Amino acid sequence: MEKHILVINPNSNASMTAAMDRSLDKMRYAGGPKITCVTLAEGPFGIETQRQADEVTVPLCALIDRNKDKYDAFVIGCFGDPGVAAAREITSKPVIGLCEAGVSAALNFCETYGIVTNLASDAIGEIRLLRAQGLDARLAGIEAIEVPVTALADTPEIRASAVAAARRLGERGAQGVILGCAGMTAYSRQIREETGLWVIDPVVAAAGLALAAVASVE
Amino acid sequence: MEKHILVINPNSNASMTAAMDRSLDKMRYAGGPKITCVTLAEGPFGIETQRQADEVTVPLCALIDRNKDKYDAFVIGCFGDPGVAAAREITSKPVIGLCEAGVSAALNFCETYGIVTNLASDAIGEIRLLRAQGLDARLAGIEAIEVPVTALADTPEIRASAVAAARRLGERGAQGVILGCAGMTAYSRQIREETGLWVIDPVVAAAGLALAAVASVE
Amino acid sequence: MEKHILVINPNSNASMTAAMDRSLDKMRYAGGPKITCVTLAEGPFGIETQRQADEVTVPLCALIDRNKDKYDAFVIGCFGDPGVAAAREITSKPVIGLCEAGVSAALNFCETYGIVTNLASDAIGEIRLLRAQGLDARLAGIEAIEVPVTALADTPEIRASAVAAARRLGERGAQGVILGCAGMTAYSRQIREETGLWVIDPVVAAAGLALAAVASVE
Amino acid sequence: MEKHILVINPNSNASMTAAMDRSLDKMRYAGGPKITCVTLAEGPFGIETQRQADEVTVPLCALIDRNKDKYDAFVIGCFGDPGVAAAREITSKPVIGLCEAGVSAALNFCETYGIVTNLASDAIGEIRLLRAQGLDARLAGIEAIEVPVTALADTPEIRASAVAAARRLGERGAQGVILGCAGMTAYSRQIREETGLWVIDPVVAAAGLALAAVASVE
Amino acid sequence: MEKHILVINPNSNASMTAAMDRSLDKMRYAGGPKITCVTLAEGPFGIETQRQADEVTVPLCALIDRNKDKYDAFVIGCFGDPGVAAAREITSKPVIGLCEAGVSAALNFCETYGIVTNLASDAIGEIRLLRAQGLDARLAGIEAIEVPVTALADTPEIRASAVAAARRLGERGAQGVILGCAGMTAYSRQIREETGLWVIDPVVAAAGLALAAVASVE
Amino acid sequence: MEKHILVINPNSNASMTAAMDRSLDKMRYAGGPKITCVTLAEGPFGIETQRQADEVTVPLCALIDRNKDKYDAFVIGCFGDPGVAAAREITSKPVIGLCEAGVSAALNFCETYGIVTNLASDAIGEIRLLRAQGLDARLAGIEAIEVPVTALADTPEIRASAVAAARRLGERGAQGVILGCAGMTAYSRQIREETGLWVIDPVVAAAGLALAAVASVE
Repeated sequence: MEKHILVINPNSNASMTAAMDRSLDKMRYAGGPKITCVTLAEGPFGIETQRQADEVTVPLCALIDRNKDKYDAFVIGCFGDPGVAAAREITSKPVIGLCEAGVSAALNFCETYGIVTNLASDAIGEIRLLRAQGLDARLAGIEAIEVPVTALADTPEIRASAVAAARRLGERGAQGVILGCAGMTAYSRQIREETGLWVIDPVVAAAGLALAAVASVE
Repeated sequence: MEKHILVINPNSNASMTAAMDRSLDKMRYAGGPKITCVTLAEGPFGIETQRQADEVTVPLCALIDRNKDKYDAFVIGCFGDPGVAAAREITSKPVIGLCEAGVSAALNFCETYGIVTNLASDAIGEIRLLRAQGLDARLAGIEAIEVPVTALADTPEIRASAVAAARRLGERGAQGVILGCAGMTAYSRQIREETGLWVIDPVVAAAGLALAAVASVE
Repeated sequence: MEKHILVINPNSNASMTAAMDRSLDKMRYAGGPKITCVTLAEGPFGIETQRQADEVTVPLCALIDRNKDKYDAFVIGCFGDPGVAAAREITSKPVIGLCEAGVSAALNFCETYGIVTNLASDAIGEIRLLRAQGLDARLAGIEAIEVPVTALADTPEIRASAVAAARRLGERGAQGVILGCAGMTAYSRQIREETGLWVIDPVVAAAGLALAAVASVE
Repeated sequence: MEKHILVINPNSNASMTAAMDRSLDKMRYAGGPKITCVTLAEGPFGIETQRQADEVTVPLCALIDRNKDKYDAFVIGCFGDPGVAAAREITSKPVIGLCEAGVSAALNFCETYGIVTNLASDAIGEIRLLRAQGLDARLAGIEAIEVPVTALADTPEIRASAVAAARRLGERGAQGVILGCAGMTAYSRQIREETGLWVIDPVVAAAGLALAAVASVE
Repeated sequence: MEKHILVINPNSNASMTAAMDRSLDKMRYAGGPKITCVTLAEGPFGIETQRQADEVTVPLCALIDRNKDKYDAFVIGCFGDPGVAAAREITSKPVIGLCEAGVSAALNFCETYGIVTNLASDAIGEIRLLRAQGLDARLAGIEAIEVPVTALADTPEIRASAVAAARRLGERGAQGVILGCAGMTAYSRQIREETGLWVIDPVVAAAGLALAAVASVE
Repeated sequence: MEKHILVINPNSNASMTAAMDRSLDKMRYAGGPKITCVTLAEGPFGIETQRQADEVTVPLCALIDRNKDKYDAFVIGCFGDPGVAAAREITSKPVIGLCEAGVSAALNFCETYGIVTNLASDAIGEIRLLRAQGLDARLAGIEAIEVPVTALADTPEIRASAVAAARRLGERGAQGVILGCAGMTAYSRQIREETGLWVIDPVVAAAGLALAAVASVE
């Protein structure tokens, strides 16, 4: 029977959902699992605080609970991994978070990794999350583009900031960079071309892990 | 253009290559990347020592070097990750090893993981490898089936040993188990059914990561 | 001006709030800070899952937000430290969680510590929390009394279970034990008397840290 | 019966003892434990080397031994934690050191911490101590005021150095700073006001932990 | 000019000094450095507590201070490494401790190591020391012979206890064992013969490191 | 019977073997073990890649296998520790690698260490090796002289680069530096004289450890 993966954007910014959706086209194959992206209507426009991350768990878990029989795997499309641990209590099906997926995938491509994040103040929470996930040993650094998640857009200025952040990570020893927000997909190719570093889009990484997961359960 | 992933079995046991090949059928999609499995003719029948793991690097790197323009990603199909670091010097395309792929994928599905290995004496080298990879923080334990890689077969006795090893890992706190050898794929379903634990086949995990990698680069 | 510390029981079990309140009598001094305990009416009767821990953040942060000008420090009285990181965004006043307070205090009294927890299945989440908090290096183990938080009561049977769990921790090398639930205060003296181990009641530890914190800001 | 906490300044600088004493006034309450500060007459004027730290153990342990029945808890008032492990063998009552107390308390208020120390050369020994205590995971850095402990005084120049050191720690990612010497108490308020960082006075932190400890034993 | 290494037994048990002296015969060569063993007259008969370890620093540092111009390297012959950090402040010549030397040497011969210690209660302090030294990653365990250092003798019963402790370490995964007391040298050969494990005598290891050190400075 | 240590230069640069040989003169004593240096004819002129390091295992293990009855200990004279784990499977006699020996010896002389390496790009592999060996806790940094191993020579320019790299390590907090290549021996004295730092020549350190090892087995 056809497998079906649900990717949930836990913020209510539909254009970010649309960007993820486009980005996931590369992981959709004729005979392969179906990948559907949805926006969590109850989410904030952007998840910028730990309080928002915790609070979004309520509608997010409700959505997963309502849909747990309809899908074979779930991706929570936010780099703070909100609700991932909680959702894993609701369903025994795979629930994949962007930070854990992006970083764990990155370890297969680069000996050391960096994270391109929105704001410098994100770093403390991200390091705490990486420590919780046991994934901090090969972290080279975190560099910010200083554009909040709610202001992300595909402009030359923001692209240039993303390239500059990636370049600083390379100077700090990173062999690859992880895009620290589902809304940064559009900068992927330019970062790769201008820095020569590996660029890991955590949305695509999560999809690859989800494909492997749903295949395993047959 | 169609993407093409090469999975190399670095030992010369063609039946193990065939098993991987069958297992990868779940990751082959009509419009998706082609996945080809080959046997390294110069490899030993089974890689059982560190010396064999190091020595196999010579023909393995030669094979990757000869084929580096023909494929988009390489999977080295042995849980000791022989030649992975060396191969990454030869090509800038993804080179994925089974241990790193299996463990990093497992972290997305289970808070703690265990490894089902061939022999108890494998554990010391595996722990050293996990420490090198910075992936040891969530390890619950390693348990052996006490069947050397060269004697692996799909018999009821060996299946029972694999289930028993997985059960012991569950008792030690593992939420999921990684099959510590490409030749253990056949036991996957039975372990899951009898223990209720997540079972990660590193060959499938590596394929999922490879799909994400080749999709990212276009 | 008189300092005032608010201790919030984030579950709605008023008898647990009352037990904390009695236990905190030892930390109330004539001229010292006032310590008030409240029950979070919107909380579940007991917080038993990560989902409940995340979800309780909504009313918990709202309560702290409404009261942030009235109190000088906040203690969140649940060992899973729900909402602690989120609440710290709402106020720059001290917000103290029971796990972080209990473990960090314990390190001052015992070289190695153990946790007496409700259910064996709590251990995985607690270890993850300790790893996030960077407080896992001196952990000797976690042992369960196998009584869920909602069924805690001061009966001889449960006391005996708590003593037995503490004794097992001593055998695993713990010099002291932390009561892993605000509802275990009543067993404190008996565990100390029967095992000779240090017993850290995290509610009292949190109060000590809160006294130091409010004194520092004068 | 009234509880009594003994704070021992292990160096023979009586003005430093007096400063601690004043600072502890905030932790003295009408009905609360009595807190007495004493100077170790046999100590050096300032403890500046590991040799002094080790040697002071002889009179320090003798003093605790003589007084072990008279007090309910002991604080050793030096950031190098001299004699703490040894003193814990002499009495089963709480023996609290300033580094362990200051850092463990700080973890409850700030995700990352820094230490304001006397001399840059202190850092190597402090990092070794933090590693021994398992408290180094959240350390952001150590910055020196370049005034030896024997020359500490409450002058505008030294205050400015302390503020500058704290500011550098903030730039390195610290959310709070710990005063790395019992003699730095006087700079606390100014650092907080000029940098906005949490300031942890380890003498006050130790007193808070001691209050919790003596309350627990009743 | 002839090099001269001073090995100091910091306890006053002259028969233990004599045993070290005999053991070091293997490291004395015709044209090589002279190795002299002395007993610290002021030391206790055996160092059994942290208080003794700290207190012995006074006469130990005095002895090194008096002799710092006469010798080219110093070995402090006690597994608790008393006074090592302090002595390094007195002289810039090598000062080597038995625990650090034994463990660091062991890492060159065995992937995992264990320690045969006197009493089970030693383990907590030893683990703390190993954590301070950053040498705990490859520790398989610590097992006691339950004979205090002051009662060590070369009897069949104690030899059997030492062999049994080593065997338990082997079962816990150790590839080699370190004798956790300068007084255990006599059991070395028998442990090796009966268990097949590597046996590291830290006195000999320290001498090897001292030979390298004095050769380096020419 | 006379003991005999074989030092193998796994690259085919005979002048580097000669330099090691001269350096080891300090560790040769009239009545002591014989130390013989040989060049691995099949090795590359310099080992500069992981592929070369893995590939050299074939002739290196063959050489050790042919000679395993003739020698009492083996030193593999390359800082990447090629073939060390593999060679330990061939013989139960000590097999010592330069990185593990140099770093573990350094820990006995300096609280923090740095590595002077050939090229900045070496650092990532070296950090991975140190993580595998569990020896990274006290690493202060790695600094390069930017001269490839095949171009090492005893010129004033390269000496100056080595001194500069060591000085940068001192500024980053290293108390001692390890020469990260067997071909850097000649710079040892000048680095010590100009920087005042400990300088650890891993070839000499390995010899010291080998002397201790062969003495232990008597």
